[in-house]
Amino acid sequence: MKNCMVAQSGGPTSVINSSVAGVVGENNKIKYYDNVYGGINGIEGILQERIINLSKLTDKDLELLKYTPAAGLGSCRYKMDDFNKNEEEYLKFFQILDMLDVQTFFYIGGNDSMDTVSKLSEYASLKGIDKQIIGIPKTIDNDLLHTDHTPGYGSAAKYIATTTLETYLDSRIYPNNGVFILETMGRDTGWLAASAALAKLNGESVVDFIYLPEKEFIEEKFLSEVSDVFQKKNRAYIVVSEGVKDESGETLFIRDSDSKTHDGFSHAQLGGVGKYIEKVIKDNKIAPKTRVLELSVAQRSAMHLASMTDIEEAYLVGKQAMKYSAQGHTGFMVGMKRLGNNPYEIETYRVEASKVANNIKYFPKEWIALEGNNITDEAIEYMAPLIIGEPTLPIEEGLPKYIDLNKENLI
Amino acid sequence: MKNCMVAQSGGPTSVINSSVAGVVGENNKIKYYDNVYGGINGIEGILQERIINLSKLTDKDLELLKYTPAAGLGSCRYKMDDFNKNEEEYLKFFQILDMLDVQTFFYIGGNDSMDTVSKLSEYASLKGIDKQIIGIPKTIDNDLLHTDHTPGYGSAAKYIATTTLETYLDSRIYPNNGVFILETMGRDTGWLAASAALAKLNGESVVDFIYLPEKEFIEEKFLSEVSDVFQKKNRAYIVVSEGVKDESGETLFIRDSDSKTHDGFSHAQLGGVGKYIEKVIKDNKIAPKTRVLELSVAQRSAMHLASMTDIEEAYLVGKQAMKYSAQGHTGFMVGMKRLGNNPYEIETYRVEASKVANNIKYFPKEWIALEGNNITDEAIEYMAPLIIGEPTLPIEEGLPKYIDLNKENLI
Repeated sequence: MKNCMVAQSGGPTSVINSSVAGVVGENNKIKYYDNVYGGINGIEGILQERIINLSKLTDKDLELLKYTPAAGLGSCRYKMDDFNKNEEEYLKFFQILDMLDVQTFFYIGGNDSMDTVSKLSEYASLKGIDKQIIGIPKTIDNDLLHTDHTPGYGSAAKYIATTTLETYLDSRIYPNNGVFILETMGRDTGWLAASAALAKLNGESVVDFIYLPEKEFIEEKFLSEVSDVFQKKNRAYIVVSEGVKDESGETLFIRDSDSKTHDGFSHAQLGGVGKYIEKVIKDNKIAPKTRVLELSVAQRSAMHLASMTDIEEAYLVGKQAMKYSAQGHTGFMVGMKRLGNNPYEIETYRVEASKVANNIKYFPKEWIALEGNNITDEAIEYMAPLIIGEPTLPIEEGLPKYIDLNKENLI
Repeated sequence: MKNCMVAQSGGPTSVINSSVAGVVGENNKIKYYDNVYGGINGIEGILQERIINLSKLTDKDLELLKYTPAAGLGSCRYKMDDFNKNEEEYLKFFQILDMLDVQTFFYIGGNDSMDTVSKLSEYASLKGIDKQIIGIPKTIDNDLLHTDHTPGYGSAAKYIATTTLETYLDSRIYPNNGVFILETMGRDTGWLAASAALAKLNGESVVDFIYLPEKEFIEEKFLSEVSDVFQKKNRAYIVVSEGVKDESGETLFIRDSDSKTHDGFSHAQLGGVGKYIEKVIKDNKIAPKTRVLELSVAQRSAMHLASMTDIEEAYLVGKQAMKYSAQGHTGFMVGMKRLGNNPYEIETYRVEASKVANNIKYFPKEWIALEGNNITDEAIEYMAPLIIGEPTLPIEEGLPKYIDLNKENLI
């Protein structure tokens, strides 16, 4: 008996389950493992022995899973201790793998998860444990090093660009319009905010300004440029990343000034950077009307608007992880290399997980427009192929039909 | 020479242009009028003689218009004076109609616009002016009397239900989840918030609570019921209408306590009812984690997720308005009557605009669940057919292709 296990970690994406489907689907073909187990809630649940058997899924269920958003296995935000300081979890983890005859562990996640992959494989290697630990990339943030882009990003970008286009049309209908502010995710990097530039009408980008965390936000400059555009056009469309920081490196948000308690129950953050920027515009009387749209988790769960390119690539990295595992490799993440844009083509390769772990791929400085408030054509060229293609989702009573994995049916 | 004119008013919907396409498309068939003109920015722009010729649109453009969200002709929020007090605008309006040989004016809008239709037709009748004034219903709010439902509502409902389903999946991925709060539009009525109940997984509604403006919001009761569900499920999904009011009839939102000026520049409203409810949950330590998603204008402009039923009905009311006009009728709005649910079928009829004007159709009390925090199966039965069907939008570079009417090319 030789089995494997797959689990999901960190913030989900629209296509994170497509990678699980890729792992299971490929094994159904090559029959390398007897069973593909699924760990519930990542490492955290696995350590509690919460594990199901994904090989029992029918082909139809697997197809549904490929097109179901959000971590179907559940996720966690769990950082493993350094094994030199605390070996306990490592012992327990490999004990569980042994118990279940699991040869290979696939972990789908971002840079934190690649830290887990790196630590587990290093531990196994040090202790002479013959197990394989393999990372599968996932994050809407697109901030992983050593991969052209990350599965999850293209779908979030397509959601952001579509919503930008549609709300732009809405934002300019009155004789007197205002300033529209779209807030995207992206705590450290501007990849998500940048994708709004893909929204075009008559070949022109509809967005006036994009503010990224990679460029410090100078309020005075901001007010002056927004005021200029508003005077000229009687409207302005601004996109801002949640991670935008001021000159002192502080993230911009509106605090609840009443909250003084420190009891573990954090008090409401009244507004993020979008609301902050709205307040600045109002306070400085730049425009009489403003509107903020904070996309929040919709941008990472909107499978109905996912990129087919992204879905297929998320499936591919799962499938390739399975293939690489059958070749005996360990301690790596599946990376994607872009072979070209015309036609757009990628191939996968293996990159040491330790090189990806705890690192951040920032939006390139040279892709930020000279004025610091938009992006270059080169950046658009990079993003454009990632949002191509629309899935045909199964529909039931007018809504997408998604699968709900039975997480209680433990093995 | 006999022409007609169509214009749009009030908040837009995903399908408000489908009704324009219906008016123009039907006239292209029956050739009743020589030209269909389009008034820019509703009555406000027409009074400034900002008018274009929609009969110049190609069939392809018209097809694009049918599938383009947000008021393509521009909109306004303009209330006409009583003509007994101020006749000037009325004289000007009918002068412009005369000048352009316009026999019939179609106004696409909600209850305020039906007030305009009612006033203009009453004025024409009193003065013996032989012109026809016809209202075409439109509002995501679904709050017009004398029509089973309004074009625009089904698409907003489909957007809300889909987003509810997708963000619900996202909201339950961690071992420790929180309270998710979805804020919909609906200042006076709960129709939009109610539509979240359509989101189902395994046949069960995913939403725990829905709070409507029609039912007073009692904080203590709210905290107790949310706390109960959170204790039981380790999560809760709440939907709340922006118009929810407390026992004294006050809308719930977080004010900017710093704003004291009264200079026409309104200060930032830091948070709507969603943020308010989040604060109440935090302050009362009901759950350690919360997340608010305010759908804002995305719910009224997301053509990519429109209901095909809604698109066709929006087209139909435009088409029927044209037919009724050829029969010589005036002073009415096109209403929809539901003939049945199995199969779902509607027919149109004429209802006096004055009966619709300035009235509000509230969410029926008997469709609110006994506990006051959800809706009944009967309400779901009413909404269900309205979200059926998906349009196949033309796609360009991964995004929907929308038409941008040339509003500068005035006649």
